[in-house]
Amino acid sequence: MQDSHWEHERLRLLLKVASTISREMQLDKLLRVIMDEVKSVLQCDRCTVFVLDRERNELWSKVAHGEKEIRFAAHLGIAGHVATTGRVINIPDAYADDRFNPNIDKQTGYHTQTILAAPMRNKLGEIIGVFQTLNKHDGHFTGEDEETLDAISALSATQIENAQLYENQKKTFDSFLETLASTIDARDPLTAGHSQRITLYAAEMAQVLHLSEKEMEVLRVSALLHDYGKIAVREAVLTKEDRLTESEYKHIRNHAAYTKSILEKINFTGALRQVPLIAASHHERVDGTGYPAGLVDEQIPKLSKILAVVDVFDALTSKRHYRTRMPFHEVIQTLTAGIGTQFDPRYVNAFKQIKLDRLLHILEHEHVDLLHRADLSSLADYDSIDYVAAFQAPFPLEQEKRLIMTFQTYYLQQYLNG
Amino acid sequence: MQDSHWEHERLRLLLKVASTISREMQLDKLLRVIMDEVKSVLQCDRCTVFVLDRERNELWSKVAHGEKEIRFAAHLGIAGHVATTGRVINIPDAYADDRFNPNIDKQTGYHTQTILAAPMRNKLGEIIGVFQTLNKHDGHFTGEDEETLDAISALSATQIENAQLYENQKKTFDSFLETLASTIDARDPLTAGHSQRITLYAAEMAQVLHLSEKEMEVLRVSALLHDYGKIAVREAVLTKEDRLTESEYKHIRNHAAYTKSILEKINFTGALRQVPLIAASHHERVDGTGYPAGLVDEQIPKLSKILAVVDVFDALTSKRHYRTRMPFHEVIQTLTAGIGTQFDPRYVNAFKQIKLDRLLHILEHEHVDLLHRADLSSLADYDSIDYVAAFQAPFPLEQEKRLIMTFQTYYLQQYLNG
Repeated sequence: MQDSHWEHERLRLLLKVASTISREMQLDKLLRVIMDEVKSVLQCDRCTVFVLDRERNELWSKVAHGEKEIRFAAHLGIAGHVATTGRVINIPDAYADDRFNPNIDKQTGYHTQTILAAPMRNKLGEIIGVFQTLNKHDGHFTGEDEETLDAISALSATQIENAQLYENQKKTFDSFLETLASTIDARDPLTAGHSQRITLYAAEMAQVLHLSEKEMEVLRVSALLHDYGKIAVREAVLTKEDRLTESEYKHIRNHAAYTKSILEKINFTGALRQVPLIAASHHERVDGTGYPAGLVDEQIPKLSKILAVVDVFDALTSKRHYRTRMPFHEVIQTLTAGIGTQFDPRYVNAFKQIKLDRLLHILEHEHVDLLHRADLSSLADYDSIDYVAAFQAPFPLEQEKRLIMTFQTYYLQQYLNG
Repeated sequence: MQDSHWEHERLRLLLKVASTISREMQLDKLLRVIMDEVKSVLQCDRCTVFVLDRERNELWSKVAHGEKEIRFAAHLGIAGHVATTGRVINIPDAYADDRFNPNIDKQTGYHTQTILAAPMRNKLGEIIGVFQTLNKHDGHFTGEDEETLDAISALSATQIENAQLYENQKKTFDSFLETLASTIDARDPLTAGHSQRITLYAAEMAQVLHLSEKEMEVLRVSALLHDYGKIAVREAVLTKEDRLTESEYKHIRNHAAYTKSILEKINFTGALRQVPLIAASHHERVDGTGYPAGLVDEQIPKLSKILAVVDVFDALTSKRHYRTRMPFHEVIQTLTAGIGTQFDPRYVNAFKQIKLDRLLHILEHEHVDLLHRADLSSLADYDSIDYVAAFQAPFPLEQEKRLIMTFQTYYLQQYLNG
């Protein structure tokens, strides 16, 4: 009866674990959920799931409740022993066992007493990771704990593989979009890196505006693809250095309409279905004189209004063959002057709230390694509004002078000539 | 004790169901696995999972063990009733219940006696589908069956949503690749539809050669992207109608190397990691005089050798502004003549085994609706080898004449002028 009761309780817990972990498809979160479940089911102090990276032959894990990833060669330590032999290790007294390495305890101040470690196998029987649990609350880990961990391990393996499959596909798609965007930008030397940068600016706007995760994703994909239509614009027109004729100008403006018609052929699902419209509407103006559709203010999707601001900002702050960057205070004045005709005030104002260190990071996206950390952190307290105020102060304070000078050092790219 | 035993057995079964269904991420297969599990756990004759399509407000399902999809308005029948009210329906005698529609039994010859139908809810509590089980083997469905079905339903809902998420992302990516390929082809009017067609030819080759599913997927993606590098080729050169200069010709040939270097930036995972190399090697020749790398025979990946054959076939059978298609027997002779210098004999021979109806389907990809079914099925018994033999026969048989004439009718696109 005791056995039957125990078995019953075990089944109930396992079913709960199965149901809980099946809800999570994001690998990071999934690992955390699994570790929490194991801790609670096995009544122990710590649980770590190590995932085997076959290519690099390493085990890695997110430290529970921490942000850092740990990684080590796949044969090291207790976990490495389990990954190599495929056998369960149940150690009642860690310090009496040769396989235990006390150095980590020394570093962390933790005191390991009992250890239960088990391999995680996929449906093909291949080892894909290792469970390691520490310090059973009450005594040491039992044979029953071994059985339970084995069952959770099997359930987890499938879910981890599903999550990896999903993430890999997402990563492939994302890197594809990025590569495509930069390829299209590269057709016109003046716009190299443009789509990448406006995607980054848009992400900063999303932070300031507290957009939802879904909106952020739509904004990100729309930003990457907003100039996709340029793929259909004739190169001779795209790269012409002389003044464009009226018909050439019209042809270039068509890129926005091309963006829409091409992206509409893509089988976007869920919230991403808005991407073609949002991406294509980045040249609409609130006064209705924009293109391709000549939409008026409230007809323009919010996310397109955001793209409109960052698109112009990037154009003004990019170097052209015939000039250096427009002075920064003029850029901000130009955006401000566009309020009510070109831009929605909300999004110009949001843009002006992005901190200067974040802006510099994107402006100097191609050589971030040249940014000094101390300079960046001194700019982290200021936004564009502060900058313009400092710039226009009739009697600037010492700190205002420093702000202007630090920012200008990078913005004018003087370090590139020094 | 009976209760405890029952509960115990139920937990054991549920855990098995959870583990079984968690292994399947392909929606079609998943639905079948779920239906089989329910039948076996509830000991009944049939189980159907209906999935709610919110956009079209329809319920759909694959008929168990059948290929056909059934679809109907989301308020119809027992399943519709459950989807609308969110309540479980347990009918001990179908023919005595008003909600039961006996017409389907009449059509199928099946005799429905007992029905248990339950909603399937996701973690947000939204109804995403309906379970319908028919004819409990022994008596009618019990309250315990209702509980069990409810638990399976909850487990299934998560897994179905995960599979949908995964499939949607895959669909978006695939349609993206197709759209991109056709956009690139469209830059050169001579090659419109080219990537799409060679992807289809490659799929036929895969069938003839019995490639594995993984190889097929790598071949498909490589075929779609083989000319991606053209995005970096200057348009003036790409579309030049006069004879190319040596340096222009070299620039065009660079598209293969561009394909490799651009695709290498993409975070392909698993087998797809071979895509950049395979896609870029479609102009390699077995005698080592190809490009970009001048690989020799066994250095050229098998899938690139397949692409080489279908790439040339498509070029020869495409209309050019200055000529119609090359006569079909000459196309086949040209491929054959390339064996040992340009092509690996295995893949020319495989190509020649593709049935003529399949070839016509792809050759006339843009107006398949003009192909007569009777003509196609009369061509389904012949391949290119048969065609050339018939064409060259000094005294062709009646059926050989018919074969040539039927194929030519479409190949020469005479119907477009008649």
